[in-house]
Amino acid sequence: MNESNRVYLYDTTLRDGAQTSGVDFTVADKAAIARELDTLGIDYVEGGWPGANPTDDAFFADAPNLSRARFTAFGMTRRPGRSAANDPGLNALLDSGAPAVCIVGKSWDFHVDMALGITQAENLSLIRDSIAAIVARGREALFDAEHFFDGYKANPDFTLACAKAAYEAGARWVVLCDTNGGTLPHEVEAIVTAVAKSIPGSHLGIHCHNDTENAVANSLAAVRAGARMVQGTLNGLGERCGNANLVSLLPTLVLKLGYETGVGPDGLKRLVHASRLLDERLNRAPNRHAPYVGEAAFAHKGGLHVSAVARDPSSYEHLDPALVGNRRHVLVSDQAGRSNILSRLMEVGITLSPDDPRIGQLVDTVKRREFEGYAYDGAEAGFELLARRALGEVPDYFHLTSFRVLDERRWNARGELVTMSEATTKLEVAGESLMTVAEGNGPVNALDQALRKALIPAYPALEGMRLVDYKVRILTPQDGTKAVTRVMIESADATGHRWTTVGVSANVIDASFNALSDSITYCLFRAGARIDSRTAAA
Amino acid sequence: MNESNRVYLYDTTLRDGAQTSGVDFTVADKAAIARELDTLGIDYVEGGWPGANPTDDAFFADAPNLSRARFTAFGMTRRPGRSAANDPGLNALLDSGAPAVCIVGKSWDFHVDMALGITQAENLSLIRDSIAAIVARGREALFDAEHFFDGYKANPDFTLACAKAAYEAGARWVVLCDTNGGTLPHEVEAIVTAVAKSIPGSHLGIHCHNDTENAVANSLAAVRAGARMVQGTLNGLGERCGNANLVSLLPTLVLKLGYETGVGPDGLKRLVHASRLLDERLNRAPNRHAPYVGEAAFAHKGGLHVSAVARDPSSYEHLDPALVGNRRHVLVSDQAGRSNILSRLMEVGITLSPDDPRIGQLVDTVKRREFEGYAYDGAEAGFELLARRALGEVPDYFHLTSFRVLDERRWNARGELVTMSEATTKLEVAGESLMTVAEGNGPVNALDQALRKALIPAYPALEGMRLVDYKVRILTPQDGTKAVTRVMIESADATGHRWTTVGVSANVIDASFNALSDSITYCLFRAGARIDSRTAAA
Repeated sequence: MNESNRVYLYDTTLRDGAQTSGVDFTVADKAAIARELDTLGIDYVEGGWPGANPTDDAFFADAPNLSRARFTAFGMTRRPGRSAANDPGLNALLDSGAPAVCIVGKSWDFHVDMALGITQAENLSLIRDSIAAIVARGREALFDAEHFFDGYKANPDFTLACAKAAYEAGARWVVLCDTNGGTLPHEVEAIVTAVAKSIPGSHLGIHCHNDTENAVANSLAAVRAGARMVQGTLNGLGERCGNANLVSLLPTLVLKLGYETGVGPDGLKRLVHASRLLDERLNRAPNRHAPYVGEAAFAHKGGLHVSAVARDPSSYEHLDPALVGNRRHVLVSDQAGRSNILSRLMEVGITLSPDDPRIGQLVDTVKRREFEGYAYDGAEAGFELLARRALGEVPDYFHLTSFRVLDERRWNARGELVTMSEATTKLEVAGESLMTVAEGNGPVNALDQALRKALIPAYPALEGMRLVDYKVRILTPQDGTKAVTRVMIESADATGHRWTTVGVSANVIDASFNALSDSITYCLFRAGARIDSRTAAA
Repeated sequence: MNESNRVYLYDTTLRDGAQTSGVDFTVADKAAIARELDTLGIDYVEGGWPGANPTDDAFFADAPNLSRARFTAFGMTRRPGRSAANDPGLNALLDSGAPAVCIVGKSWDFHVDMALGITQAENLSLIRDSIAAIVARGREALFDAEHFFDGYKANPDFTLACAKAAYEAGARWVVLCDTNGGTLPHEVEAIVTAVAKSIPGSHLGIHCHNDTENAVANSLAAVRAGARMVQGTLNGLGERCGNANLVSLLPTLVLKLGYETGVGPDGLKRLVHASRLLDERLNRAPNRHAPYVGEAAFAHKGGLHVSAVARDPSSYEHLDPALVGNRRHVLVSDQAGRSNILSRLMEVGITLSPDDPRIGQLVDTVKRREFEGYAYDGAEAGFELLARRALGEVPDYFHLTSFRVLDERRWNARGELVTMSEATTKLEVAGESLMTVAEGNGPVNALDQALRKALIPAYPALEGMRLVDYKVRILTPQDGTKAVTRVMIESADATGHRWTTVGVSANVIDASFNALSDSITYCLFRAGARIDSRTAAA
């Protein structure tokens, strides 16, 4: 292995990523993410800041067993006026048991003066003493040079002196941090090139923030200039605009630039999974448009693109999606031709022969529906149902006879103006006529409640299903009275599986009912529910 | 002005951005976005592809009146085997009336061979003839060289010949497109530097996609290498991983790199607004972490940061957020809140003295409402009403006692399943109690009809008012039962004036009523209606 070609990856999802507003990892979250990073082949996993909060204390007290990654504790240099040996913060790091310790220190004269109020010489000894203390305890020492680039622009000599103090005291890595995130790629390249004349690139790291949308490019610029460690987070998590996104950096470094990392081909194929795992832990919808791993990252819409991609994927793809565990995604749009439909069917697990006569019918159905206002781009479950119905695979789990929804705004007994919604539905289920009524916090919610009240006894699979999003769009709004409403409903089941269906009608309640009804049917179809299950359950 | 320092911005939100999965602009959306881009100071607004679909045809047939931006039609080079004069696609572009026409053509030998199946020489004449036809009709011609970077890597001579063919035929701009999005910043810089030896940088543009998360950095690299046009979209909208994000590029180009653009300081201050406007039109939640414009872009979490920021913002901020219309999110000082409100009031035409005591109350009201889920970025009329009510300027034109809406789906006399909505309202108007009932094609439409039936006799100004758009968003969708619904209603009057109001409630019908009621009130206020007008009319 050519050592100079080896780039080390340092993940700070569990520390700098945890600074994101709204992010609140549990100890179990931290352990699951650390294990995933280890499996990927990330070199360093920064677990948090022992001594800073109870979650991090508990996590370090029962640190996960990592097979390859170095588990790393984060903290800061000793305080002014205390020896390293008597600094409680530093001791908490050394007592954490982590084999590597990363400390942050000042390197911008403005901050030394303004925030710490000490001399520049004293700042250098804070750094030296702290790194020396870590090395003396047999730990690997890393130094995060805070505000390195802003500092370098203001006073290169002092900023470089801080970095050299850490390096000379025994730091394995001196990490140049663009703390405020305002530095641009050409500046990073020039400054890292200059620094690499004093500290070998094999000991330099880069830590970027995305405040100008250049965190990935800045990290790449530093590597080109010789730095051999990159710090970042999964999905670019991090405060403000986030940290450098390791999920984007990793395949670029390995597959496009030919660097070696600890991540092998199998690790790269886990990238989509690792990215989604973080979103699941954070209860966030994944970013469909995320580079490499997003659901839309290899999506093709136009018919011309689609037939070209079918002939040779490299014509409209910069990379084989399978290398990062992703897949090609052909969007069904109004230009839908047979090849679109065929590949889309394959994606939802339906294989038909290219000359099956039902394909032509399906193309016509999709075109007619899209003309009416249906859109299947964001509603794969709706498309799958449409296709499976055309193939005669979907049972009629229930049949609507009628519904009625009443919304009323009036003064209640306490003199408050309240609005209530009530729905009545009449269904036929397995030959039986059922009438139910329910209230909700809106007409669609009331309908949903009434439908479920009727259906759950027959189909217990619906128990864990819930609405997670509801979107309404008025189409052709130019033509007020003839306007059509499109409703998209996203649902989830107890396992976290999510699906989206679509309904269209001149009446928003009708459109909502159509989407809701498809969503329930999809849930039942996926659960393998059987029409006669009610009789069996009774 | 130093011409070489001037960078031209070309927005393709309405064309390449419209390729995004799930994005489906209406003609009204396109017009609103084009107007906003014009107000910002963007040089070129690409409206779409006339002849490709009914939406774009309708949009070009009634093109918005732009004051500064060049309205641009997009299409492709003439087809092989047809003269430019007889090519229906090209003629549709020339007949669209747009003063600038941008056509895309092949520049990668692999595509010429595989997708078009023509000789390289024939491809060059497709380009030459098409550009010449545009120039001959007195339009400004632009050439998008598809797959330029992939093509250049494979066969630099041919790819460059394509670009030169366009330039020599009279193209004002030759735009180098990284169509598949896999090119990295250092490659872009090297290739654009080489190309600029044959075609002056003042005629070169760059068009990047974000497949490696480098679209912004790639665009900056091209500008550093001499290109003077940047193509991109608002919020980086675009298929797969998106196009280069103009919202991130613009402040970097102007505020960090000192380039001149058509966007002045006032335009930059509209950046947050422009970004949110697009999200509202797409019915999407804004990205809190978006560089420069995200709600969290200048948020400070750590206590240390906060006090340092209070002492000197530059210590933890790369830029003054006010320059791009954003604000620091710490404990918002009363002064910051006041100046924010003052500038928003000025925008809607209300001038108050900075020390008016009512400003403090208004700041509190807006904060409380935004906490509840109201959003005024896309609803200026809602904000104006809120402010004018606080100032005691808005009469109580009517008072709701109660309403009731019934939606019913049932089999009609002809054996068809129909859904009908009927609303009953009880109002007090000018001291009189009025009860009306009306049908509609949905509950909100029925409510609207019933309200108008009651109000038009008293307020004839409502006669020409109509609903043009209706959008629903579920806030906090993680928390199903406690979710709050936000409704935005766009209305228009007979003169074509449009305004948007907002309503929030746990119940979607209630939220809709709130927005509808504000919309009617705004219409009456604008028309200068007087409460006693009914008596006068009777």
